[in-house]
Amino acid sequence: MNDNEINFWLDLFEDMTNKVEDAINTARNDPQIRTITKIGADGTPTHKIDEYAEDMAIDILKKSGKSLIVISEESGTIKIGDNPEAIIIMDPLDGTSNALKNIPCYGISLALAKINSGEDLEKITLEDIEIGYVKNFPIGDVYMAVKGHGATKNDKPMKISEITKASESTVSTYVYRAKKNSLSKLCSSVRRMRLMGAIAIELCYVADGTYDVFLDIGQVRVLDIAAAQLIIKENNGIVTNAKTGNINNQLNLKEKTSIIAAANEKIHEDIIKLLE
Amino acid sequence: MNDNEINFWLDLFEDMTNKVEDAINTARNDPQIRTITKIGADGTPTHKIDEYAEDMAIDILKKSGKSLIVISEESGTIKIGDNPEAIIIMDPLDGTSNALKNIPCYGISLALAKINSGEDLEKITLEDIEIGYVKNFPIGDVYMAVKGHGATKNDKPMKISEITKASESTVSTYVYRAKKNSLSKLCSSVRRMRLMGAIAIELCYVADGTYDVFLDIGQVRVLDIAAAQLIIKENNGIVTNAKTGNINNQLNLKEKTSIIAAANEKIHEDIIKLLE
Repeated sequence: MNDNEINFWLDLFEDMTNKVEDAINTARNDPQIRTITKIGADGTPTHKIDEYAEDMAIDILKKSGKSLIVISEESGTIKIGDNPEAIIIMDPLDGTSNALKNIPCYGISLALAKINSGEDLEKITLEDIEIGYVKNFPIGDVYMAVKGHGATKNDKPMKISEITKASESTVSTYVYRAKKNSLSKLCSSVRRMRLMGAIAIELCYVADGTYDVFLDIGQVRVLDIAAAQLIIKENNGIVTNAKTGNINNQLNLKEKTSIIAAANEKIHEDIIKLLE
Repeated sequence: MNDNEINFWLDLFEDMTNKVEDAINTARNDPQIRTITKIGADGTPTHKIDEYAEDMAIDILKKSGKSLIVISEESGTIKIGDNPEAIIIMDPLDGTSNALKNIPCYGISLALAKINSGEDLEKITLEDIEIGYVKNFPIGDVYMAVKGHGATKNDKPMKISEITKASESTVSTYVYRAKKNSLSKLCSSVRRMRLMGAIAIELCYVADGTYDVFLDIGQVRVLDIAAAQLIIKENNGIVTNAKTGNINNQLNLKEKTSIIAAANEKIHEDIIKLLE
């Protein structure tokens, strides 16, 4: 992408982010905010607050003048215009439960992959994501990355952790979704654990050095990690699946993967050894 | 205690809290903030930021005009004056690591037990705590309880959770400190887990309905739970050790206990059944 294109998409994502945040704040005045309105396209319950966020995000994309494929949590896959030039894969509200409980860890995750003329959409994968944009709403931190151009936090470089040993590491892991006992050795070997409940934000915590490792050896949706995996990689972190392979899943709503995101190769290796 | 006494201590705790918060903010300008300065009286490393917090807290207590026994994380047990009328057991900075990493979950925990004339200090336990005061600094929420008078959050009543089933519950548990595998059944049975890394704050999350349960079947220090256990109990929650007995440990730095804090008896029972 040339600079004009990059700036167009980053401006659009900034606009979406600000308006989705406003929509979420508006939703807080709705007595039905906690209501489960339907089962979303991804098979999980949609709360009214999710609808506020997603309706706003899609509305802005429809008005962008661009032809797009949009993959989103509640609505599924939407085509805007006739000749899509990019896939936007997004979670307009990552960490819904935290937003409802006022646990300060929730936000938006937006990712973009270009579609070349005549390209088979099914061949576009997570590795083709070129822009990743995440905002932690209650904290106000904005993380972004452009493939080949690096990553920033609040428009500044951010420092990834240099910790290399599991025994000194801060690790976030979704223990309650993992296979029984498979994380026992890991849990008893790390320095400390955290589990905040918003995957995109917690992956950005690996990018900015708050965490040393984030892993989920269960099944995370591609849309949850699409933006943040690029942000980590563009800040020289390591992102693989639990079998240490590249994560190159197709961009669709049903696609899931395990993930091990680590600040550097050494801590990544140390963590892999602890998985039973 | 009569109303004058209660108001005296609550005013003192508010003053300590505000000044400790200021001291922590001042500490952020100190390039040595992350330095480990010593091993504290409790056997864990003391960071410079802990010293800023504790020095301020103790300074205010010394100037309070009261004769006191103070039990604190870094300094151990200090006697102020000749004829102590109360024990103050406190953690001036609960969640040090979060404070250093800017994870928005850290604060102060202050608890008070009266000493009656001639009373054997060794017989004073957690059950004798009469005032509990906790502030979540980055969020600004103040939790307080006076024994027999109920609990408040930001001077208003707070609603504890009515969820009764583990399968619907949000649970915080220190998996990485528990005995291997002992939490497997629990982890796979609850609705969601969180682990924020600041015990006093997370116990207050049980009191205000953010969490349904907090448990640590390892060993938590009495000073970490002294204030918040009263706040939960005064809001009609249940606090026991892992064997479902009352927590009535002596007030000293070395004393530790397991803890299961739950929003109501039913969810408490449901969680107990899941512990292997």
